[in-house]
Amino acid sequence: MHGGGYSDLGFARLDVDRAARTGDPEVVYGAGKTVEQGVALVAALRAAHPDRPALVTRAAAELVTALQDAYGDEAHVDEEARAVAVGPLPAGRGTVCVVSAGTSDGPVAAEAAFTARVVGAGVERVSDVGVAGIHRVLSVRDVLDAADCLVVVAGMDGALPSAVGGLTGVPLVAVPTSVGYGASFGGVAALLTMLNSCAPGVVVTNIDNGFGAGLFAARVARRAAPR
Amino acid sequence: MHGGGYSDLGFARLDVDRAARTGDPEVVYGAGKTVEQGVALVAALRAAHPDRPALVTRAAAELVTALQDAYGDEAHVDEEARAVAVGPLPAGRGTVCVVSAGTSDGPVAAEAAFTARVVGAGVERVSDVGVAGIHRVLSVRDVLDAADCLVVVAGMDGALPSAVGGLTGVPLVAVPTSVGYGASFGGVAALLTMLNSCAPGVVVTNIDNGFGAGLFAARVARRAAPR
Amino acid sequence: MHGGGYSDLGFARLDVDRAARTGDPEVVYGAGKTVEQGVALVAALRAAHPDRPALVTRAAAELVTALQDAYGDEAHVDEEARAVAVGPLPAGRGTVCVVSAGTSDGPVAAEAAFTARVVGAGVERVSDVGVAGIHRVLSVRDVLDAADCLVVVAGMDGALPSAVGGLTGVPLVAVPTSVGYGASFGGVAALLTMLNSCAPGVVVTNIDNGFGAGLFAARVARRAAPR
Amino acid sequence: MHGGGYSDLGFARLDVDRAARTGDPEVVYGAGKTVEQGVALVAALRAAHPDRPALVTRAAAELVTALQDAYGDEAHVDEEARAVAVGPLPAGRGTVCVVSAGTSDGPVAAEAAFTARVVGAGVERVSDVGVAGIHRVLSVRDVLDAADCLVVVAGMDGALPSAVGGLTGVPLVAVPTSVGYGASFGGVAALLTMLNSCAPGVVVTNIDNGFGAGLFAARVARRAAPR
Amino acid sequence: MHGGGYSDLGFARLDVDRAARTGDPEVVYGAGKTVEQGVALVAALRAAHPDRPALVTRAAAELVTALQDAYGDEAHVDEEARAVAVGPLPAGRGTVCVVSAGTSDGPVAAEAAFTARVVGAGVERVSDVGVAGIHRVLSVRDVLDAADCLVVVAGMDGALPSAVGGLTGVPLVAVPTSVGYGASFGGVAALLTMLNSCAPGVVVTNIDNGFGAGLFAARVARRAAPR
Amino acid sequence: MHGGGYSDLGFARLDVDRAARTGDPEVVYGAGKTVEQGVALVAALRAAHPDRPALVTRAAAELVTALQDAYGDEAHVDEEARAVAVGPLPAGRGTVCVVSAGTSDGPVAAEAAFTARVVGAGVERVSDVGVAGIHRVLSVRDVLDAADCLVVVAGMDGALPSAVGGLTGVPLVAVPTSVGYGASFGGVAALLTMLNSCAPGVVVTNIDNGFGAGLFAARVARRAAPR
Amino acid sequence: MHGGGYSDLGFARLDVDRAARTGDPEVVYGAGKTVEQGVALVAALRAAHPDRPALVTRAAAELVTALQDAYGDEAHVDEEARAVAVGPLPAGRGTVCVVSAGTSDGPVAAEAAFTARVVGAGVERVSDVGVAGIHRVLSVRDVLDAADCLVVVAGMDGALPSAVGGLTGVPLVAVPTSVGYGASFGGVAALLTMLNSCAPGVVVTNIDNGFGAGLFAARVARRAAPR
Amino acid sequence: MHGGGYSDLGFARLDVDRAARTGDPEVVYGAGKTVEQGVALVAALRAAHPDRPALVTRAAAELVTALQDAYGDEAHVDEEARAVAVGPLPAGRGTVCVVSAGTSDGPVAAEAAFTARVVGAGVERVSDVGVAGIHRVLSVRDVLDAADCLVVVAGMDGALPSAVGGLTGVPLVAVPTSVGYGASFGGVAALLTMLNSCAPGVVVTNIDNGFGAGLFAARVARRAAPR
Repeated sequence: MHGGGYSDLGFARLDVDRAARTGDPEVVYGAGKTVEQGVALVAALRAAHPDRPALVTRAAAELVTALQDAYGDEAHVDEEARAVAVGPLPAGRGTVCVVSAGTSDGPVAAEAAFTARVVGAGVERVSDVGVAGIHRVLSVRDVLDAADCLVVVAGMDGALPSAVGGLTGVPLVAVPTSVGYGASFGGVAALLTMLNSCAPGVVVTNIDNGFGAGLFAARVARRAAPR
Repeated sequence: MHGGGYSDLGFARLDVDRAARTGDPEVVYGAGKTVEQGVALVAALRAAHPDRPALVTRAAAELVTALQDAYGDEAHVDEEARAVAVGPLPAGRGTVCVVSAGTSDGPVAAEAAFTARVVGAGVERVSDVGVAGIHRVLSVRDVLDAADCLVVVAGMDGALPSAVGGLTGVPLVAVPTSVGYGASFGGVAALLTMLNSCAPGVVVTNIDNGFGAGLFAARVARRAAPR
Repeated sequence: MHGGGYSDLGFARLDVDRAARTGDPEVVYGAGKTVEQGVALVAALRAAHPDRPALVTRAAAELVTALQDAYGDEAHVDEEARAVAVGPLPAGRGTVCVVSAGTSDGPVAAEAAFTARVVGAGVERVSDVGVAGIHRVLSVRDVLDAADCLVVVAGMDGALPSAVGGLTGVPLVAVPTSVGYGASFGGVAALLTMLNSCAPGVVVTNIDNGFGAGLFAARVARRAAPR
Repeated sequence: MHGGGYSDLGFARLDVDRAARTGDPEVVYGAGKTVEQGVALVAALRAAHPDRPALVTRAAAELVTALQDAYGDEAHVDEEARAVAVGPLPAGRGTVCVVSAGTSDGPVAAEAAFTARVVGAGVERVSDVGVAGIHRVLSVRDVLDAADCLVVVAGMDGALPSAVGGLTGVPLVAVPTSVGYGASFGGVAALLTMLNSCAPGVVVTNIDNGFGAGLFAARVARRAAPR
Repeated sequence: MHGGGYSDLGFARLDVDRAARTGDPEVVYGAGKTVEQGVALVAALRAAHPDRPALVTRAAAELVTALQDAYGDEAHVDEEARAVAVGPLPAGRGTVCVVSAGTSDGPVAAEAAFTARVVGAGVERVSDVGVAGIHRVLSVRDVLDAADCLVVVAGMDGALPSAVGGLTGVPLVAVPTSVGYGASFGGVAALLTMLNSCAPGVVVTNIDNGFGAGLFAARVARRAAPR
Repeated sequence: MHGGGYSDLGFARLDVDRAARTGDPEVVYGAGKTVEQGVALVAALRAAHPDRPALVTRAAAELVTALQDAYGDEAHVDEEARAVAVGPLPAGRGTVCVVSAGTSDGPVAAEAAFTARVVGAGVERVSDVGVAGIHRVLSVRDVLDAADCLVVVAGMDGALPSAVGGLTGVPLVAVPTSVGYGASFGGVAALLTMLNSCAPGVVVTNIDNGFGAGLFAARVARRAAPR
Repeated sequence: MHGGGYSDLGFARLDVDRAARTGDPEVVYGAGKTVEQGVALVAALRAAHPDRPALVTRAAAELVTALQDAYGDEAHVDEEARAVAVGPLPAGRGTVCVVSAGTSDGPVAAEAAFTARVVGAGVERVSDVGVAGIHRVLSVRDVLDAADCLVVVAGMDGALPSAVGGLTGVPLVAVPTSVGYGASFGGVAALLTMLNSCAPGVVVTNIDNGFGAGLFAARVARRAAPR
Repeated sequence: MHGGGYSDLGFARLDVDRAARTGDPEVVYGAGKTVEQGVALVAALRAAHPDRPALVTRAAAELVTALQDAYGDEAHVDEEARAVAVGPLPAGRGTVCVVSAGTSDGPVAAEAAFTARVVGAGVERVSDVGVAGIHRVLSVRDVLDAADCLVVVAGMDGALPSAVGGLTGVPLVAVPTSVGYGASFGGVAALLTMLNSCAPGVVVTNIDNGFGAGLFAARVARRAAPR
């Protein structure tokens, strides 16, 4: 069944109308879905929007393989991000720069970068520039200033966005990660740090939400670089 | 004393260099400051940047009066926001639309709107459109779509950004307010709602941080509408 | 041993008198019980109340099979809900409508619906109508208005009951689920959203408590539709 | 201005259409509103719905007096509840029974009872029957069973709804109050107790939310006693 | 090495002097200890105090078997409590009555009862008398009044101690258990309920701490029944 | 009205039967009560139990004066505890020893001591023996060992009960106080310390609950010293 | 009375022996003490240790005045810190450098600096060098490296210790302050940031505990600079 | 690539400059790293600093083996601490004394001790001296006083640092461990106890952070014992 702005797959009522409303395709959140469900959702999205990619995040290895088998070269895979995009990628407009603090923050940063790219922005990554070695941040200041939107990813103390936010006026989205132990409380410490950032104009996403940050940043970057 | 990128007032080491780094003027957070401190900080900022306004937020009534006495027409006051801008306002580039849920959320929404204006964006406000009367949200859909960045302000259940975020692809900054009682925990309930928004691409500020949201949104809007 | 209003099974003192007090049968909460315990409890309840079904919730697959083996057609199974009712189902009086936000909220919604049915109400389900696609909610408004009691199930931001509660005056029971990650804190974010709902007259159950919501809603529906 | 389902008072966009959607009038939450705002909101509601009462909760003494001055006998005041209803009260259909644990829980219980009455249900109150003197609860069992919906109000340990819920099958709404000290955390202890009630079918409102419980219970009671 | 009030086992400095100070033997908390460590600790305690039992709590099945192999009839095992006492049990002085709410609270109640017995009190158990079936509590009132100290064990809403504490003036130790789900937060809800009990004179232990409650209660009971 | 085990004062349903059930008189919790309510409650209790004292805790200065005016020498006042007992004090049986850590913990310790005395135990106080000066604790070891029950009161780190509990086998009730700042969270830090005490057999009351600890300890002490 | 290592003032058992044990004088925590108590405690400490200063922290203005009246030039006052030291200050050994982030963190930083000085260290202060203007931190790097121990004071995001800790190997004590709003939770956000600092070797004190940090740092500095 | 103060390994941008800034080598946090990553990081550190050891903490057994295979006698392993140091250990200057409360706290204490040794301090360990057997603490008072810095490790109630801190003026770093259950909340109870220590001058690390405490203590000890 299909109509009224959604497609009824039996186990899900897919919102195929979102693209018209938001300019972005529907996304499949892979966690907790079976391979069959994941494949069926992608197929429905591909049918509804042949001209846009369907994005799958937090995809299990089996789902990644199934999508590669089904779509071949049409399936773009980012292993670090555990994400797949099926279909033609749009041209990249504007630049999103994804900055991450430690090695362990890599997968969340990768998810943000991959999402931004799939949603239609150009992407730059700067990794492993934690605030405890502030010279590493300072050495990439030009890259930061050249971006249209920054995504800054950090776990543990979550202090990196405050340092970066003090260096530049580029819009900055902070992403706390669940990296840490003890009183990091699965990313809550980093989340609170970022919400209380003493650098003005820092905004924050949920813990480990690289997807949300990448999508938001791409929307900002696309607007900053009109066709 | 003045140099090395900051001005030493004795009780504060004012960062007069921030404008060069970020494109925005330094801001004086009025809460907990004496009238004398507030006036001195504004004077120093005016001296350092005659071409930009100095913004004072959370200003006590006495500080507002003192600034009006000292600067006359140069002092732009927003009573609902309890904010003052001293100096020439920049032209407004792009449009920030500030949407708020209930009457009590007004002061935070006003702070966001006033900040965005002072920082250099055009501003639109839509008030009292809570999610419990969803037709009020739907009736302003055109206004939402026309903005370059949305600021959505809500207390209590904090559900409004999820509804608005499902209607449009405009970048959306959600601001939880401390409006509520009991298990609202001073805005924590609304904060968590927004961090977990099922609408993709919603980013969040600290509770009651209208200033941060307005500054961020203006940065996005200015980039979307280049000179 | 049996008397004084309870039946002593050795490992449990079963309250067989509850039916007289409340009009509903005792329920076996399957989590953490062995197959043997589950089967023995059902047998005791069947013996005490041959005219009513015995309900088992959160039943492991092995317990479901054992009950099907023991009772054949008398065992009514809901796989999505992981629940079994053994014995004759009562006629359904009144209508409970169970509304759920996302695919992952399905099992909790199914538990609510199955419980309501077993306890003696008619049941309607509306699935996958999250607040981020508000047109999906609006399109079922007639179904909502026709019910005697609503059960609205949502995880993540838990915003759906606020939107539904603004559309109708039917009594509404909100059920937060543990669906989400990061700052959803296993359903706490959705729970707080619902407790602070800006729609008046929303009441709430524990996280993932589909059983409690279904039982409560059936009591309301039965009263609204007297024999 | 008036139209499109709301009335624009300048400081508020009043939802005068809610009555049509929900069968209940709009309510004015008095906390944090000036006397002028409160009086203006009531006037607008009276104008829109001459046949229904307008309810004001958490009204400051000055607002109560102002409404009595303005409306005379039309203003129905409940001092314990700090609530006022202006306009003709509907006939009471069905019975809501409000049970409270301790003397200090009285104002919340009164708000629930007054709201239920104004919204159109008959009301019964049973006070000071805490669980630590269980014979007091048992002695009113007949009253409990005769109601169409129970509202059970308790602070501190919040244990009363569990005891009452084990005695009867009448739908039960539990209201935690902020009465207590130390580890009661302003009502959180009672809230958690009620959410985890071992009596099946207990639903819960926000802390101190007598209004929400009364409205919900009246909706249930009215349905149970059709005209 | 042995002296100065402790025995040095290399991996532990065993406090063999505690018996002299407190009148109770040292206890081995089995969780997280290897079978070898458990056996060595018991051996050291047996050597230091041949006239008293050594108590092991939260013992893994392997440790239980190893102690039975090593000590034969001298090893007293309680399977439900997962506890072992090695050596001669003292005569039981006074009576500790352990009351528990639900089947799942059994292991914690068993640990309390076994500990009280090993430490030198007589013990009575009353199981499965939750507050939601208050008649079950009332029917054992004589047993409660006859005890020298009560231990009341409950998970979920933790309401049982309030009901029991209102019926009797016997000293009452409440033990919250981690039984529950969602907003029970691993026993925190029950803990808070008990700390806020409206029945005067209720004292509380850590979550699942049957051992501490049993030891404390036995100390009270022994004093109440002098030799 | 009087009967059925309670006395109805209009604003309260006084449980005059508690003495028969528990052996202790009803207590009036003074906080939040008017002077008139406090005086009326005491009068009702005096009338119901002329042979026992009525205890008022957390009494405002005005209520203390009113009770002294009304009852003269019959009113026993403890200023540090802000408590009053009206009527003949029972003979003291057994000994409760109240130990407190810092000067600021004094009022809570005084409430515990006064309650224990009014309820019928002999009382000893040891003040200002914090764990950071452990020699002060050691110097009173004889006093500790001579008691029938200990009440140990401490704020901040709440470490005193662990040290005392390691020195003696006397039953020990720990009372956390709200003394502290920052991460003491109004007594939560001390409460958690006590719940996790490494000294076995420590039981705990709510924060600042000197009354509950004193009542419990007196019950234990009275049993240990039978008439 | 005086002996056994403490002096009994009636309302306090003063630990006059601490100096011998720790090398530091006893300190009077002024909050919540009357002027009379404060003066009496200082007099007792002066009598016990004529050669050392007595330190009073969080002193109300009246207590400061009373001590100045009583001791004249012997009373050293720090108004920003609200602290007084009475008696001869020791020579300063080694250097403690107190670094603070914002103007509002001043009082806590002042308390740390004053304490360190009174306890016997030399002190340096660097103020208003928040992490959002990282060049201000970098410009004082020489001062940081020259110290024997650093105290770094910050509220809001608490990020400054991570940045400073990455620049130098000098022992660093981080002090979170309660400066902030919303999700700063009275200093909890800054506390968590510091506990999770990605700079190795950062240790932390309680929120606003300038005294503890200053005392600790002085102990470190004195050892680093032996006589 | 190597330069600008860091070495780029592809998956990590190693801060090889830290030694120059802080006097300590970079450390590899082994948790969550593959054996290959761990070995590569150690190799890079060895290459950059042949004269200093590279420290690996929280190393899985496979990584330990791989480092032993690769470096033979150069690899110093502490099994209890699960840590490896590769390269020549520096001479030990000054003394760090690591005190731990219970057997289960051993691994964290071992990590602190091993780190302090690798970083260049002499180390002493005192184990199993919990506060509940205070004579065990008192018997090692000389050892405590002889140290240049103390590290005190405790789980459960976390009370040991308060007792130790009252006995000596040696700088004291408290380390909470995650040892405990129920309301210990994975070490939070111990953390709060330590932050609120009534012994002045106690500083605290994150839960289980033996590494941070050892590094900090070694820095203090080295300064106290200059070459």
